[in-house]
Amino acid sequence: MAVASPSVTDVCRAAKRASRALATMSGADKDAALLRVADALEERSAEILEANARDLEAGRENGLSDALMDRLALDPKRLAGIADAVRSIAALPDPVGEVIDGWRLPNGLDLRKVRVPLGVVAVIYESRPNVTVDAAALALKSGNAVVLRGSAAAAHSNAVLASIVAPAFPDGAVALLTGGREQLAELATQEGVVDLIIPRGGEGLKKALSEVARVPVIYAASGNCHVYVDASADLDDALRIVVNAKVQRPGVCNAAETLLVHAGVASQFLPAAGAALREAGVELRADERAAALLDGAAAATEEDWLEEFLALILAVKVVDSHEEAIEHVNTYGSGHSEAIITGSAQAARAFQLGVDAACVYVNASTRFTDGGEFGMGAEIGNSTQKLHARGPIGLRELCTFKYLVEGDGQARA
Amino acid sequence: MAVASPSVTDVCRAAKRASRALATMSGADKDAALLRVADALEERSAEILEANARDLEAGRENGLSDALMDRLALDPKRLAGIADAVRSIAALPDPVGEVIDGWRLPNGLDLRKVRVPLGVVAVIYESRPNVTVDAAALALKSGNAVVLRGSAAAAHSNAVLASIVAPAFPDGAVALLTGGREQLAELATQEGVVDLIIPRGGEGLKKALSEVARVPVIYAASGNCHVYVDASADLDDALRIVVNAKVQRPGVCNAAETLLVHAGVASQFLPAAGAALREAGVELRADERAAALLDGAAAATEEDWLEEFLALILAVKVVDSHEEAIEHVNTYGSGHSEAIITGSAQAARAFQLGVDAACVYVNASTRFTDGGEFGMGAEIGNSTQKLHARGPIGLRELCTFKYLVEGDGQARA
Repeated sequence: MAVASPSVTDVCRAAKRASRALATMSGADKDAALLRVADALEERSAEILEANARDLEAGRENGLSDALMDRLALDPKRLAGIADAVRSIAALPDPVGEVIDGWRLPNGLDLRKVRVPLGVVAVIYESRPNVTVDAAALALKSGNAVVLRGSAAAAHSNAVLASIVAPAFPDGAVALLTGGREQLAELATQEGVVDLIIPRGGEGLKKALSEVARVPVIYAASGNCHVYVDASADLDDALRIVVNAKVQRPGVCNAAETLLVHAGVASQFLPAAGAALREAGVELRADERAAALLDGAAAATEEDWLEEFLALILAVKVVDSHEEAIEHVNTYGSGHSEAIITGSAQAARAFQLGVDAACVYVNASTRFTDGGEFGMGAEIGNSTQKLHARGPIGLRELCTFKYLVEGDGQARA
Repeated sequence: MAVASPSVTDVCRAAKRASRALATMSGADKDAALLRVADALEERSAEILEANARDLEAGRENGLSDALMDRLALDPKRLAGIADAVRSIAALPDPVGEVIDGWRLPNGLDLRKVRVPLGVVAVIYESRPNVTVDAAALALKSGNAVVLRGSAAAAHSNAVLASIVAPAFPDGAVALLTGGREQLAELATQEGVVDLIIPRGGEGLKKALSEVARVPVIYAASGNCHVYVDASADLDDALRIVVNAKVQRPGVCNAAETLLVHAGVASQFLPAAGAALREAGVELRADERAAALLDGAAAATEEDWLEEFLALILAVKVVDSHEEAIEHVNTYGSGHSEAIITGSAQAARAFQLGVDAACVYVNASTRFTDGGEFGMGAEIGNSTQKLHARGPIGLRELCTFKYLVEGDGQARA
C-alpha cells in the first residue's frame, strides 16, 4: 500500500503523545496486547512470508551475500520463533511501577523511587526482520512508544510485521521509518521527544550516529573478552571453558578473543589447549612464550590484543601474575566480559575488584553475558557504557525512575 | 608558582591511572584522607584567603558584578563551612561495593550486581571556589578521580584549594585545568578516558559543551516547577506551600515558577494567595480568569508558562480539572519538581502517575528536591535527564555497577 510519508518529527511527536497512554497502561493490558500480536503473527504468516519473498528476490537481484540473505530470510519455523519470543516477553514481570527504593525523611515526608518508562525509544537495526518484532515487544512491555528504523533490504517484511504489532497498542505507539539515511540525523536530534536511541548495527552506523546525536544513545557493545587461566586453575575446567568461550558461538560479542595463561601452568596447559582449539578449527596468534608451547601458532601483533575477531581466531599470551593479567585486560579489553579460572580465593577477588568490565566471571565462561542467561528475560543488546545500562539491556534498562514524595503540608524551613 | 602545563590529554590519562588505585581504596582510607583535607583547609586558611584576595582584586579591576564578587569571595566563616562539608561527605556511607541486586541462576552461577566507581569524573564550573573542594570530595568519596575546571576569575583560589586536596589522594587523582576555553573541546572528547562530565554553569556553557561532547555529560537541570492547588486542597496548607515554593529561595532550580489553581477554589484561594505573595514581593503574571481574582497582576504570555524566572515572579493560571493541570505541567514543565496540593486520593494518584518529572510531590513544597533533604548526603547537582541519574546527583549517581559472576566450571550449552 502507498501512504504519504509523515516526517520523522511528526512520527516522533505522535510517539511521544502515545507514550503518555502507554505509561499508565496496566501490565495486564500490555500483556494481552502482546499475546494478540503473537497470535496475529501466526495467523498472518502467509502475508509475512510473501513480503519476505519480495525482499529476498530484491536481495538476490542486488547481489546480497549469502550471510545477509540468511539473516533476511523468514520461514514458518523462524516465524514461530518470533511469535514465541513475544509470548516470552509478555510472560516477564512488568518493570513499570516497581519500587526501587524508599524511605521516610526526618520531616515526615515519605519518598519512593519508582520505575517508570523512558517515553520514546528508537531502535536502528540492519537486515534481520525479527528485530522489528523483538525490539517493539521489549519497548512496549516496558511502557515505551517505539520508533523502528530497519534496513531497506528488509522493507517489505518490516512493513508487514510493524502493521501487525501496531494495532494492538495506542495510535502512534509503534512507528516504522522507511526513508533514507538522511532520517538518521533528524531522528538523532529529537531532543525532548525521543528519549533514547539504540543502534544495533556495525561500526559504520555507530560512527554516523555519534557524529550527529543529541538524543541519548546506548551503543551496542563490541566485546574484546579475555579468559585468564591462573596458576592455581583446575586445568580441566580451564580447557572446557576456554574452548566454550571461543568456539561455542564465535561471532558474538561475549566470545573470548584472547587467552592469558599464567607462566606457572603454561607448559602444562597450552599444548593440550592448543591441540583442542586447533581441532575445533581455531587459528592461534601467540606471544613468544606461548608460541614456544603451541604448534603452528602465528606471532601475535599489538593489533591482535586489541582486535575483536568475531571468528575462530584466538590471541594467546603468557603472563607472570594475575596482576599482569588484570593490567592486560584493562589495557586492551573493551569492558564487556572477562573471566579468571583459578583455585585461589585471593586471585579471584583481585580479578573481580581490579578488572573494569560489565561482567567479571570466576570459573565460568564469558558466554553467559546475556539477558536471557542472566534471568532478566530478553535483551535488546549489551552495553559496555558505564552510564545507565551496563551489561544486558533488558526491560528495566528501558526504564527510568521518578521520586514520588508524599507529605501533609511540609514546607522547607 | 609557575609550572609547565601538561596537556588535557596527559592530565586525563594520569587521572585514569589514578582511578584504578582509587577504585580499590578502602572506605576507611578515603574517609581519613577527606578528614586530613578538612583539617588542612583550616590550617592553611591564611594562604587560601590571600589567594582569594588576589582573585577579588583582579575581579574588581575587571569590573565583576557585585553578585559575582560575592560568589567569588571567601572568608573564615565560609572556609569553615567548606571544611565542614568535607567532613559531612566523609561521614556518608561508602557507595562502592554496595550489592544492588543478586540472584542464583538455574545453572548454579551466583550473580551479584555491585556498585563501582565510574572512573574519571570531570566537573566544569563557574566562579564559586567552594565547588573545587565540594566536587572533589564527592568524586573521591565515590572512588573516582576528578578533573576540575573552574573559571579564570577564581584561578588563584582554586589553585590553592586543589593543592590542599590533591596530596591526600593517589598521584593524579585530583587535577585542576587552568587553560582557556579551547580546553573544553579537548576534555569533552576524551572518550574511554573521562567517564562523565558534569557542567555546573549557565546555558552558554551547556550549549558549548553539547556541541562538542563525545564523553557522556549530565547537564545540571533547569527547573520550571509548578504547584497545583486542587479543588479539594486544604487551603491553609496550599497557601503555606505556594509561598514557600516561590519565596523561600527564588533563585534555585526547585523553586516554583507557575501556580495552577482549580476553578472550584480559585475565588476562595487566589485573593488571599495573591495578597500573601505580593506582600512577599512577588510579581504576578496571570491568565484571564486568575487575573480577575488578583489585584495588580499582569497578563501572562505564552512565554511566561515556559520561563524559569529564578526571581520573585510567579505565573498563575486557573484550570478546570487535575487532568488539565497534568497536561499543562507536561507541556510546559522541565521535568524537575512538581507538586499537587489536594485532599483527593484519586487526584493525588493521577498526578503522581501522569506527571513526567524527576520528583512529584503530594501536599509538600517542591523545594525539598535536594540530595541533602532527600537524605542522600551532599549533591553535585540535579538532573532532569532520564538516563542514569534523575533528580539529585549524589555519591551513588557518581558510580556505575558491574556484574560479578561466580561458578564452578560452567560453560554455555
